[in-house]
Amino acid sequence: MKIGVLGTGVVGQTLAAKLVALGHDVVIGTRDPAATLARSEKGPFGSPPFREWHAANPKVKLEAMAAACAHAELAFNVLAGQASVEALRGAADALAGKVLIDVANPLDFSKGMPPSLSVSNTDSLGEQIQRALPRTKVVKTLNTVNALLMVDPGQLAGGDHTMFMSGDDADAKAMVSGFLKESFGWKDVVDLGDITTARGTEMYLPLWVRLYGSLKTPMFSVKLVR
Amino acid sequence: MKIGVLGTGVVGQTLAAKLVALGHDVVIGTRDPAATLARSEKGPFGSPPFREWHAANPKVKLEAMAAACAHAELAFNVLAGQASVEALRGAADALAGKVLIDVANPLDFSKGMPPSLSVSNTDSLGEQIQRALPRTKVVKTLNTVNALLMVDPGQLAGGDHTMFMSGDDADAKAMVSGFLKESFGWKDVVDLGDITTARGTEMYLPLWVRLYGSLKTPMFSVKLVR
Repeated sequence: MKIGVLGTGVVGQTLAAKLVALGHDVVIGTRDPAATLARSEKGPFGSPPFREWHAANPKVKLEAMAAACAHAELAFNVLAGQASVEALRGAADALAGKVLIDVANPLDFSKGMPPSLSVSNTDSLGEQIQRALPRTKVVKTLNTVNALLMVDPGQLAGGDHTMFMSGDDADAKAMVSGFLKESFGWKDVVDLGDITTARGTEMYLPLWVRLYGSLKTPMFSVKLVR
Repeated sequence: MKIGVLGTGVVGQTLAAKLVALGHDVVIGTRDPAATLARSEKGPFGSPPFREWHAANPKVKLEAMAAACAHAELAFNVLAGQASVEALRGAADALAGKVLIDVANPLDFSKGMPPSLSVSNTDSLGEQIQRALPRTKVVKTLNTVNALLMVDPGQLAGGDHTMFMSGDDADAKAMVSGFLKESFGWKDVVDLGDITTARGTEMYLPLWVRLYGSLKTPMFSVKLVR
């Protein structure tokens, strides 16, 4: 499948590498490809510069955002939470009629650690993106686990934990749920309901952040027990 | 143990009945005992009036808030979220030096269903209560499950799910963790850290509410998989 991964950070890199390994035709989108490749400083959590990762993953193409969106039959938003809405609004035509999996969380690091949320309670990033892209089928998912678990949940407890999903379009959710199960190995994907339910999973992030602090590893998840 | 259950709703009733069955000396606190006993209308979710429950549970004493707080060696806050802080502030002297288990969630039903939170993101009800009662050791816990599961987690998956706990006082948390395990049967109690981590479990409530809507039963929980 032709897939666009919108965002060049560690989550985008992890998704793109896995999707290429699965045989998909993957383009990573960034605002300014030349600038992204020119950066030599490390990422926010000590990750190597994008160009090092890209040299090791030459099958993933790097293009400007509009080209990546045009390429995509299926797109992933892995841009920084607060920057997502405006960046995606510019690609509304290229994403029209397509499914966009929104993986981003509206984490606000501006007041230090632990982060708060830049939107919550009565709205969510998922809803903001759906409003900015009314012709796109936005499905919020994968935002409750570390990138390594997103693409390989079987690393933890043989995959015996839960992924949540929110979105307004039933067919898009059925497609995404199938994709998560067949491509990444998720066993339990729970449909929470319409895109407003993204408030629930985004507001889980403060608990995730505190659990990370308590457990000293991001390799954890929750299993919905019912 | 002498226990004060502060609040007469279904959560308070469920906790009080269990604690009396365990042999504790339990007083339920309410603003105006005569008025509470006089009420004949059903509770917000169709529960019977308090006096019917009380007639069936005569070992539980009903007293004014100050007397219930004075009685307590250990207290539970199960007042309605938004009303908790002011009601407890008036009992600051009676609760000084004691452990208060804060079970309440700051759910705001004023804008309809599903509820939003009246405080979140950069503050929490647990923190507000700790600030209102600086001489009390506030431990936030039990607020992520239905009342029936709070006191009997073994009803679900043999108890193979997780309870979270937040608080500033390590000894108080050790006591509460032991109490949850020995009295109620919790197997996995996770200490998230100081009382600011209550933001995490309170902000889990919007996800809980949506899961309730999706599963059509409140008899669910999450297991922390690590």
